[in-house]
Amino acid sequence: MDRVLSYLEANHDQALEGLKDFLRIPSVSTHPHHKTDVLHCAEYLANELRRIGMKRVDVVPTAGHPIVYAEWLEAPGQPTVLMYGHYDVQPAEPFDLWESDPFDPTIRDGNLFARGSTDDKGQVWLHVKALEAHLEQHGRLPVNVKMLIEGEEEVASAHLDEYIEKHKEDLTADVVMISDTTMYDYERPAIGYGLRGLVYMEIQIEGPNKDLHSGGYGGSVANPLNILSDIIAEMIDSDGRITIPGFYDDIVPLTDTERAAFTALAFSEDEYAERLGVAELKGEKGYSTLERIWARPTLDVNGLLGGFTGEGSKTVIASKGMAKVSMRLVPNQDPEVIAQAFEVYVEKLAPSSVKINILRHGTGKPILTPRDHPAVKAADQAITQGFGISPVYIREGGSIPVVATFQERLGLPTVLMGFGLPDCDAHAPNEKFNLKNFYRGIISAAWFYQEYSKDSEA
Amino acid sequence: MDRVLSYLEANHDQALEGLKDFLRIPSVSTHPHHKTDVLHCAEYLANELRRIGMKRVDVVPTAGHPIVYAEWLEAPGQPTVLMYGHYDVQPAEPFDLWESDPFDPTIRDGNLFARGSTDDKGQVWLHVKALEAHLEQHGRLPVNVKMLIEGEEEVASAHLDEYIEKHKEDLTADVVMISDTTMYDYERPAIGYGLRGLVYMEIQIEGPNKDLHSGGYGGSVANPLNILSDIIAEMIDSDGRITIPGFYDDIVPLTDTERAAFTALAFSEDEYAERLGVAELKGEKGYSTLERIWARPTLDVNGLLGGFTGEGSKTVIASKGMAKVSMRLVPNQDPEVIAQAFEVYVEKLAPSSVKINILRHGTGKPILTPRDHPAVKAADQAITQGFGISPVYIREGGSIPVVATFQERLGLPTVLMGFGLPDCDAHAPNEKFNLKNFYRGIISAAWFYQEYSKDSEA
Repeated sequence: MDRVLSYLEANHDQALEGLKDFLRIPSVSTHPHHKTDVLHCAEYLANELRRIGMKRVDVVPTAGHPIVYAEWLEAPGQPTVLMYGHYDVQPAEPFDLWESDPFDPTIRDGNLFARGSTDDKGQVWLHVKALEAHLEQHGRLPVNVKMLIEGEEEVASAHLDEYIEKHKEDLTADVVMISDTTMYDYERPAIGYGLRGLVYMEIQIEGPNKDLHSGGYGGSVANPLNILSDIIAEMIDSDGRITIPGFYDDIVPLTDTERAAFTALAFSEDEYAERLGVAELKGEKGYSTLERIWARPTLDVNGLLGGFTGEGSKTVIASKGMAKVSMRLVPNQDPEVIAQAFEVYVEKLAPSSVKINILRHGTGKPILTPRDHPAVKAADQAITQGFGISPVYIREGGSIPVVATFQERLGLPTVLMGFGLPDCDAHAPNEKFNLKNFYRGIISAAWFYQEYSKDSEA
Repeated sequence: MDRVLSYLEANHDQALEGLKDFLRIPSVSTHPHHKTDVLHCAEYLANELRRIGMKRVDVVPTAGHPIVYAEWLEAPGQPTVLMYGHYDVQPAEPFDLWESDPFDPTIRDGNLFARGSTDDKGQVWLHVKALEAHLEQHGRLPVNVKMLIEGEEEVASAHLDEYIEKHKEDLTADVVMISDTTMYDYERPAIGYGLRGLVYMEIQIEGPNKDLHSGGYGGSVANPLNILSDIIAEMIDSDGRITIPGFYDDIVPLTDTERAAFTALAFSEDEYAERLGVAELKGEKGYSTLERIWARPTLDVNGLLGGFTGEGSKTVIASKGMAKVSMRLVPNQDPEVIAQAFEVYVEKLAPSSVKINILRHGTGKPILTPRDHPAVKAADQAITQGFGISPVYIREGGSIPVVATFQERLGLPTVLMGFGLPDCDAHAPNEKFNLKNFYRGIISAAWFYQEYSKDSEA
């Protein structure tokens, strides 16, 4: 690694200038008039990957924007990393809030300001530079690497599933590496190893066969909106526990190690409550806020609608109402099992005076990459080398659709090694990437590919 | 009464022809292009009242359509009836669903088809004809009569309150008589003596200061829509009783006489449920459906809104939500007391993790005219004479705003003596008035003014 590190040290400026050129291409995937820019950006990246010595570099057309695929598979017996990222960016509007041109990268106060600097071009580029150093100095990589850099992440990865389905064989690997997230805070780099899953349902309720006057009929017939409220209220008890039978059965409890690790993060619940503008936090009894967000399931109403919702009053008993209700899941809850349990429970809670119809709007499995997975260990070592400090381990309350996709379609675990900062303004004006973290990120990535090789493990 | 009845018998055709002329004038109050027709209709009615011998007949302009006022006050020592009705009608659209022109009254199968035939021109006209018979045969009326026939009932009596406030002195009376409702069913004429009151509230709830991602935040912060459901659910217990402290304190219990009278109506709960398309009825434990509608208070959600309500899914924890909640009241619940109790209770139910704002959208007092009120007794005798059968006593679940107005502004009880039928299609195409009931109504009205005089009571 000495030669790799020396190379990186000597090529700071080259790395930065290459990133700047990458950022100058306005690869805004959502705007049709940037279609050529997006293609140009894919080609720029592909050329760079060819230049550094990656093999079989393809710009693969899709019905939308192309996917850049590259591989280097000449390390027999070594594990294979599927490195995922994206070269498309969010729109830069509103332009007038930018202090410098979003597509003319500018350095101020140690930060590189440009659309895509953190999300995700900068974080893709640091892997490119890490791989370049290995290839340049040793003519080879310590492990096998496949790169899948898409151009539609900011438009819901519209054609990624189709691509993965079609190229399943080509995408076999041992682990997915993604640098598209942030550090825990300014001081603490992080490894993300868990994401919650999702079951998103809609309860449609129907009572009388038409809207009724609440004077002439009120009191004599079940009001669907009152019943809907009853059903929702019944689903969470006074301890914040979800009452769906069997809901918690398959959950892998938090380990003492994890709880201790979360506690060590010294998360400020007061600051959190203040930022959200609430007088107090509220959640499942017996768990801290981080535990509630990262490692405990939820049931949230996402939408409610029924009856008269305009200004003023209308004395109506609505015939129909609806609630969108989603549940976040944690390992090893199975979305299919939970969705069924939800359906059975809602039917049971509903009195026979109403009719219930339940829709499923989507499910996603919870993700948990074991903390002792070799790739997690490699990332830990790598970050420790790159930053001079051990990473913290974090889970995320939300899902990252591609992670679920890799899990579900390819059976691959993912390691999230992100170098952004919480205030990087990824989707906002004045997006920036801290330059120190860019260089530390390159070093960390270079170490990751080294540490993940079986030679290092030995 | 013999001469009065003979006169009515001899003048069937004249009564019908006069009503037809009244119905030919398209006094649609909601359509500006009918403004002249509405005025013309008021003048037609006023001229008829002058012709039959009513004194001081005025067509009183308002900021909207005029009010027709007439009086005959030459029965010193006798009570005074304030007869209320309206000469305006609902629009007739859609015209193509009418089997005959809505403004060309047509007789088919013993019914007079025309817009306003039952609601309310026909029922106003039968009082005019009853008064005409007394005045024609005796040159006097048995009691004092004031008539207040408005032209804006179908547009929420927009200027009636202002008129009443301005003419409080002129409108003193002992009772209000209204014929603008229906019989209980084909066979049974009815006296309406009770209406429920109303308190209409809106709960606005706010949690976090902006919409949050349900993945990143779900479980850590109170979800306003879940809390809103909790609050609503908490307000009614499993027996269908409203849990607001003090809610039932001031209620005058149903008397055994009333319960027996309701029971005697042999109301079919099965037919009612079938008509509404519900598998079973649901309401307060210990009460029949008629009791629940007519004589017990309610709490109904009239509208619910919050979060994402479009098609599909959005994983949001809404910052805000709202529920419109109305309560029907029965004597002697005080709307002001109930509104306050509601506010205090909602604040108490809401955890400190949300903020609550409560709006009041309107209140109305419940109405109960004592069944032994002399005007009720007179109406009973009158209907018995007119129909050859005693009336049933009914209350209404809704409110009739003018009845509350007369109660609140003039302190007057109201007797509802309606001659429509449940299938008269008052606001629909092919509105009709059964001709037999029209004639029986004239006789009943003639008897009412007779029976209500103190001479009859003796």
